[in-house]
Amino acid sequence: MNISVLSIFPEMFGGVFNSSILKRAQEGGAVRLSVRDFREFATDKHHKVDDYPYGGGAGMVLKPEPLFRAVESLAEEGRKPRILLMCPQGERFTQRKAEELSREEDLIFLCGHYEGYDERIREHLVTDEISLGDFVLTGGELAAMTVIDSVVRLLPGVLGNEDSPEHDSFSTGLLEHPHYTRPADFRGMKVPDVLLSGNHAEIDRWREEQSLERTFTRRPDLLHKMDLTDRQKKYLKSIGWKG
Amino acid sequence: MNISVLSIFPEMFGGVFNSSILKRAQEGGAVRLSVRDFREFATDKHHKVDDYPYGGGAGMVLKPEPLFRAVESLAEEGRKPRILLMCPQGERFTQRKAEELSREEDLIFLCGHYEGYDERIREHLVTDEISLGDFVLTGGELAAMTVIDSVVRLLPGVLGNEDSPEHDSFSTGLLEHPHYTRPADFRGMKVPDVLLSGNHAEIDRWREEQSLERTFTRRPDLLHKMDLTDRQKKYLKSIGWKG
Repeated sequence: MNISVLSIFPEMFGGVFNSSILKRAQEGGAVRLSVRDFREFATDKHHKVDDYPYGGGAGMVLKPEPLFRAVESLAEEGRKPRILLMCPQGERFTQRKAEELSREEDLIFLCGHYEGYDERIREHLVTDEISLGDFVLTGGELAAMTVIDSVVRLLPGVLGNEDSPEHDSFSTGLLEHPHYTRPADFRGMKVPDVLLSGNHAEIDRWREEQSLERTFTRRPDLLHKMDLTDRQKKYLKSIGWKG
Repeated sequence: MNISVLSIFPEMFGGVFNSSILKRAQEGGAVRLSVRDFREFATDKHHKVDDYPYGGGAGMVLKPEPLFRAVESLAEEGRKPRILLMCPQGERFTQRKAEELSREEDLIFLCGHYEGYDERIREHLVTDEISLGDFVLTGGELAAMTVIDSVVRLLPGVLGNEDSPEHDSFSTGLLEHPHYTRPADFRGMKVPDVLLSGNHAEIDRWREEQSLERTFTRRPDLLHKMDLTDRQKKYLKSIGWKG
């Protein structure tokens, strides 16, 4: 997979792209990551990428030309990259979207910073507008890094077996059960006895019930999207679920 | 405000913390940002921060001791920091939460990476569990940077007037209207005539209607949370809103 990012703050990306899974994924050949400053594609001598809004008002607006030219220079002959705009008005990012994007060959991320985007960029250049959620960031850079991390870790061969995606939250539809490790007693706070029992059938049942209970308490909306077994339904009803 | 981050990948943060608004906010004294590797607080000679899960299963679990000791070393005498854990099971992060956190004095972010957290960290150390959304990241680092960016830009004096938070998406409850800047005709794609008319009453009306329409099309859920004027309701009904 090829991932290109267009940003006027390319220096923001180095620490994230050169650590951990993203570093490993590049070294293993699963992904090529690059960041370009789209100021290079401005045609005036001051490399201006934004300008005042037509109709007046506060704030600056990103001009169409530098971003169109930058994308045209990145898109290789005969390929159809997905062109992703990070913005609060976009579609909410989810694991399903990460899976969808992980099957693409070429992704190009457009990151604005402070400014708005000229509407012609949205209408005629971008294929997907993506939002992380209902909150405001200074720019699209952190949103782009977040989406990239969640997509790249799904590419074949990127995660080792121990960290494989099927153990993730959301992969079963339920929130994860609690985890415990050594010491068994930390300052008087103890690990539940069942986990020390060696009885694997009981451990599995405890974990499933904890998962159900946590999902019911924190994210009951997830239960409605699931195919629950009769045993799961019975347990949920015993703790107050009306579903 | 003091913000400390605990992570075993401290090198991920430099590019983000030393650019743009976060850089400016530190230089202006609005915030102090620091990142510590909590491996330093492991007591064994290998600086081990994770271990196998009690009860078996794949994946590693972050041990309680290094994180408890790290937080204790950071929390100053007599202060009550908010201790934030980034995880998919947490409360969904929103602009309201960013505003709430921006009124605190001390924030400490705990970032795990691949591993789960020992449940005693959640129960006895953490004050807030925060999730960016229903997707899986390699670690809490990008989530922490995202929350930090959204909080710091709300601190007094951090944004200039032009970028002030009252112009943000979500501050009016509606999505933003489209923006346009020069050129008026870009490759045949034209700016709407009304924005070139100089008639400010008409421009304001067009923008409000565009905002309403975009919100109705993309995020009708937001309309139910708002105090709409009679004129706004009338316009929304004319484009098909049943609210």
